[in-house]
Amino acid sequence: MIPARIILHEVGLRDGLQMESQVVPTERKIGWLRDLAAAGLDIIQVGSFVHPTKVPQMADTDQMFRELTAPGAKPAGVVLSGLVLNEKGLERGLACGVEMFCMGVSASETHSRKNTGMSVAEATERIIAIGRDALKAGKSVQVSVQSAFGCGYEGPVPPERVLGIVRRYLDAGLTGISLADTAGHATPAAVTDLFTAIRGMDGTAELTCHFHNTYGMAIANCYAAMCAGVQCVESSVAGLGGCPFTKIAGGNVCTEDVLHMLQRMGMRPDVRLDLLLGVARDIAAFFNRDMPGMVYKTGSISQSSSDSLP
Amino acid sequence: MIPARIILHEVGLRDGLQMESQVVPTERKIGWLRDLAAAGLDIIQVGSFVHPTKVPQMADTDQMFRELTAPGAKPAGVVLSGLVLNEKGLERGLACGVEMFCMGVSASETHSRKNTGMSVAEATERIIAIGRDALKAGKSVQVSVQSAFGCGYEGPVPPERVLGIVRRYLDAGLTGISLADTAGHATPAAVTDLFTAIRGMDGTAELTCHFHNTYGMAIANCYAAMCAGVQCVESSVAGLGGCPFTKIAGGNVCTEDVLHMLQRMGMRPDVRLDLLLGVARDIAAFFNRDMPGMVYKTGSISQSSSDSLP
Repeated sequence: MIPARIILHEVGLRDGLQMESQVVPTERKIGWLRDLAAAGLDIIQVGSFVHPTKVPQMADTDQMFRELTAPGAKPAGVVLSGLVLNEKGLERGLACGVEMFCMGVSASETHSRKNTGMSVAEATERIIAIGRDALKAGKSVQVSVQSAFGCGYEGPVPPERVLGIVRRYLDAGLTGISLADTAGHATPAAVTDLFTAIRGMDGTAELTCHFHNTYGMAIANCYAAMCAGVQCVESSVAGLGGCPFTKIAGGNVCTEDVLHMLQRMGMRPDVRLDLLLGVARDIAAFFNRDMPGMVYKTGSISQSSSDSLP
Repeated sequence: MIPARIILHEVGLRDGLQMESQVVPTERKIGWLRDLAAAGLDIIQVGSFVHPTKVPQMADTDQMFRELTAPGAKPAGVVLSGLVLNEKGLERGLACGVEMFCMGVSASETHSRKNTGMSVAEATERIIAIGRDALKAGKSVQVSVQSAFGCGYEGPVPPERVLGIVRRYLDAGLTGISLADTAGHATPAAVTDLFTAIRGMDGTAELTCHFHNTYGMAIANCYAAMCAGVQCVESSVAGLGGCPFTKIAGGNVCTEDVLHMLQRMGMRPDVRLDLLLGVARDIAAFFNRDMPGMVYKTGSISQSSSDSLP
């Protein structure tokens, strides 16, 4: 049973852009973000509070938040999220106007150590402390498990390990939970099993899925996740994305392709697909290459049907 | 509940190649077909009995069947199917060794008239007669409804129209039924509804799905179809394909990407993914362009995991 209203969380400007070597100027990113907000997406991830020298593409995150949350400048009806990796990130985020804090740990020891220098257990306790601090500051919080369906380094990740981390989150009062398929290893069956298990642990948790299309299964996995009661989908406009810390980077599931599917199933008619397609075309032009998204190339079905009338 | 054994019907050499202007030499096609058969695919569509001047890529279909079914030449363990459009096609197919006859009608009046010059009702009665003749000749028969989920010309196709054609097929004793999403309009919800309705009409019919990835939903639709009890998936190696008679041609769902998903879910471990990837790479090299398939580019997950070991 798919939830009546699927929440769309755009992560292209963060997860999508962080692997691109061509740095996008701040004003261009803000322009895209304003168009995405005007389209009616619910949450938009502005950037990541990583060290500026580590991911140059994210060096302007604080500045973007300040510009976007200045009096009168805030796009209407959208929540602005930011990814934090540590206490310093939380401090920066609280100072520049982040509305929703996203953070997480990897379920893979190898991925966790490469990404954070910490074991999974250490990282979990640290993230929980940061998440609780963000909650205390009155912010929305989403905690995630990365590599939840497998790891590019380690291969299979035991579901029990993922569920153990989720248990810790829930016990700590952190009920906005995302499972991220960093390496693209998820299958619809694994997605169904894992999210159904979490739903069984807490019927009221707000569940989010985050899939990469490395092996072509991302939209199928979104569908399976929604059928298992997941309320929120993270996606990237144009299908931008990939993680520079995993060996094989595949783009995030594509926002406008997901929306197109939802609208064809009668859901989210309030979101402006045409505006999303415009941003996707602009991104393809900026990077001067085809992006993974399908619908921005073919046009939506309603467009193509009317185009083909005699 | 996904059927325990999903049957894989390769249609790339027919539906995939018919839209390619660069004609593939017969010996090359036979080489690909032998590799696909060696990989363990269950059914392979050799070609179409269309008029040779209409689709030059299919002009050697009779010759291919003769070579492949000559004494001692037949690849082991595979069923060779052929698409027939009319009585003449059945005659040709019976003369050259076709083992399984595939035929169908479009549920869209516009698509039907463009494809066959007949109304849906006329085409249905004619196909039923041909199908019964093929059955009488001791052959396997699959009857399909094309544009079953929408039409590039007409837009939405009422489910009742599709189910009415299926009803006629079943009443005529034709129980191998395929729904083809010629224009790529299907959604997982529509797939679930339509196949569940057919399953309700006849619990023992052999159901096949045929999806194009025009809007990125093909694998999600396959998953939904299998969950609704569909036993057979039609797909194209490398994601070749598209229909020259619909306005926007999207490739068929990609065989090796579907198999990769199935194997990740514990199904069809008997099929050799590596051989399929080899054919996909050879096809990409032959046409000298990237094909839509994902896994032939990234490598399968087991490969990538072992590759990333230090």
